[in-house]
Amino acid sequence: MYDVYAVREDFPVLKEVVYLDSTATTQTPVPAVEAMVEYFYKYAGNHGRGAHRLAREATNRYEDARETVASFLDAEPSKTVFTKNTTEGINLIANSYPWEAGDHIITTLLEHHSNLLPWLRLQKKGVKVTIISPDSEGKIDISSIEEAFTEKTRLVAITQVSNVFGSIQDVKNITRLAHRNGIRTLIDGAQSAGHMPVSLKDLDCDFFATAGHKGLLGPQGTGVLYIKEPDILDSASVGGGTVSDIEGCNYVLEPSPACFEAGTPNIPGVIALGKAVEYVKKIGVSEIESHEIKLATETAKRLSELEHVEVYGPDDRAGIVPFNVKGLHAHDVALILDQTRKICVRSGHHCAIPIVRFLKVDSTVRASFALYNTEEEVDILVDAVADLKALVS
Amino acid sequence: MYDVYAVREDFPVLKEVVYLDSTATTQTPVPAVEAMVEYFYKYAGNHGRGAHRLAREATNRYEDARETVASFLDAEPSKTVFTKNTTEGINLIANSYPWEAGDHIITTLLEHHSNLLPWLRLQKKGVKVTIISPDSEGKIDISSIEEAFTEKTRLVAITQVSNVFGSIQDVKNITRLAHRNGIRTLIDGAQSAGHMPVSLKDLDCDFFATAGHKGLLGPQGTGVLYIKEPDILDSASVGGGTVSDIEGCNYVLEPSPACFEAGTPNIPGVIALGKAVEYVKKIGVSEIESHEIKLATETAKRLSELEHVEVYGPDDRAGIVPFNVKGLHAHDVALILDQTRKICVRSGHHCAIPIVRFLKVDSTVRASFALYNTEEEVDILVDAVADLKALVS
Repeated sequence: MYDVYAVREDFPVLKEVVYLDSTATTQTPVPAVEAMVEYFYKYAGNHGRGAHRLAREATNRYEDARETVASFLDAEPSKTVFTKNTTEGINLIANSYPWEAGDHIITTLLEHHSNLLPWLRLQKKGVKVTIISPDSEGKIDISSIEEAFTEKTRLVAITQVSNVFGSIQDVKNITRLAHRNGIRTLIDGAQSAGHMPVSLKDLDCDFFATAGHKGLLGPQGTGVLYIKEPDILDSASVGGGTVSDIEGCNYVLEPSPACFEAGTPNIPGVIALGKAVEYVKKIGVSEIESHEIKLATETAKRLSELEHVEVYGPDDRAGIVPFNVKGLHAHDVALILDQTRKICVRSGHHCAIPIVRFLKVDSTVRASFALYNTEEEVDILVDAVADLKALVS
Repeated sequence: MYDVYAVREDFPVLKEVVYLDSTATTQTPVPAVEAMVEYFYKYAGNHGRGAHRLAREATNRYEDARETVASFLDAEPSKTVFTKNTTEGINLIANSYPWEAGDHIITTLLEHHSNLLPWLRLQKKGVKVTIISPDSEGKIDISSIEEAFTEKTRLVAITQVSNVFGSIQDVKNITRLAHRNGIRTLIDGAQSAGHMPVSLKDLDCDFFATAGHKGLLGPQGTGVLYIKEPDILDSASVGGGTVSDIEGCNYVLEPSPACFEAGTPNIPGVIALGKAVEYVKKIGVSEIESHEIKLATETAKRLSELEHVEVYGPDDRAGIVPFNVKGLHAHDVALILDQTRKICVRSGHHCAIPIVRFLKVDSTVRASFALYNTEEEVDILVDAVADLKALVS
């Protein structure tokens, strides 16, 4: 096990607040921020298009980050595309796959809007969408997916970890099942990558989209999209860097990943993401997983023991604990926790309105954990929520 | 006139190289980089979705940057969208405007691929594209645009400053002419914003796309898109932050700009961009314009006097000087300039293959200027190019 107090030294803001909102965004460690600063002061230049030393250095470091991230996810660099965020990655697939009217997509009620709206929007093109409901703890029964298969099903799009419940889906076996039926899978890994070991070779999914700024500890403005068969897609955006030739009104696309990264990329962000992933790798993702689960499980257990609190999600959760305080609105709970104890938790529908409504509430409070959180922070949160009893009784 | 030597202190890399590649990307000043670092160490959080202090502070600073950038471009904040780069902005318009088969778009042979490919791609949907040629100095005759108008013309998409020639197009009068014919205009401002005064109220164009990392001095990974009538567009990407409600398979989009900024934005990048724009504003964009034009005009004049050099573009150029050394490939020229004098210039087709072919070459060398370049750097470049005579005679 790593030394969490030593790790905290790399995240200066943790001295100021009790940060329990890593599901929205994690904090970024000092070595990653310093890599950005070094880029700006020593070798800032545009990617891939210059003969001069700055452009070459910037390109090399950007591509080194691709190698680092691809290797961390056990994927080929040529199939690993940098995006702005998870949302852009999922929209890229929705907007560039050769859909035909009548095609069928299966997704779930668990999904973040980013893995739901892009599919719902395809209904305008005549694509049909089935939304599978989970059980009351936020788990999808694999047989309910199988029952939804039709001859026209082209894709199962599902999250690996629910950002609302913290529930973990068996995306490996869902992918196996889909493949046996000639169906592709897209995994939303926004809440899994960096929080648990993820091998894309092992999962064998067709598309995997994740954020740079969650478990991977990189800056906001970065994301990663894995595309197993780049040739089946068109390019969702075209422009600088995406074509090898233009003649009259025709053009020839570059091979992946260039054809999916139109225009000047977020070079400093990606370089920082590479450093952040090295940081995660050094600490060890299995150790991080154990640590986060331990804190979340303890938090859920202790909050459940409070009469005025309702906790959601399964016992075998990832590092996410959603709850409500009976008689108080989630936003008020979050505000009070912030104002009285500098505790940062999220409140609201978590960009997942359908599944929050499924819980028969309009919002929840969500405490979420990362590698840098401590037992003491669990105590602070549980004590503060316990104290809210005075307000509701 | 500002003190260019004082300005250079804010760009540490300029002590190491002669940086003449600002058309590809400018350098970012220290105050903007420091704003990013402050974000990471003091208040990193996700945008618009949290009750806690870090999320509120991050959201406020991000929205402050929107006010700063919108005000600088003389535009309404609600119509000012942050993108990843110019390319994303132009693709967003191409992918979300309600095109019908038979619609007609006019663009020019001058365009960067990013303002050409998105329109060419629409041909698949039955949209027709006319590409207008410039004169030999890279200027578009406004009457040649008028002659191309048909009853089906919906859009004129044109660059304000050519990244290949440095030629400036009269986009204000082109927009007036288009509007008199019920046609919208999209201006590619990648090489104009921050290099010359740009008032979107005055230009009155319908769409304006630019980069954060060129004349605005912000980091790579940022761009700005102005949309005069957001309601005529669909949202090109949907996901977190873009909808106010979902019920079953239907959803309600948020108003602009939220509906165009799906997922977690590049918060540190945008905050740094805001600081960078304040920096430009403080120095004065008219002063910057005069300085860049003076350096470029002098460079073009002196290079033209060398027998072994051919210079392209008009006399009334922006800060961009394309040239070739007879008998040497552009890439070799760029490499030699880098290796012998640490001069950073670009070489190649500048992501604008059609217009470089129009010059009957396959590549050019391009020296480009920003607010931080000096007369001494002009001397170094001209001397170095003069010395290449020994290699070609």
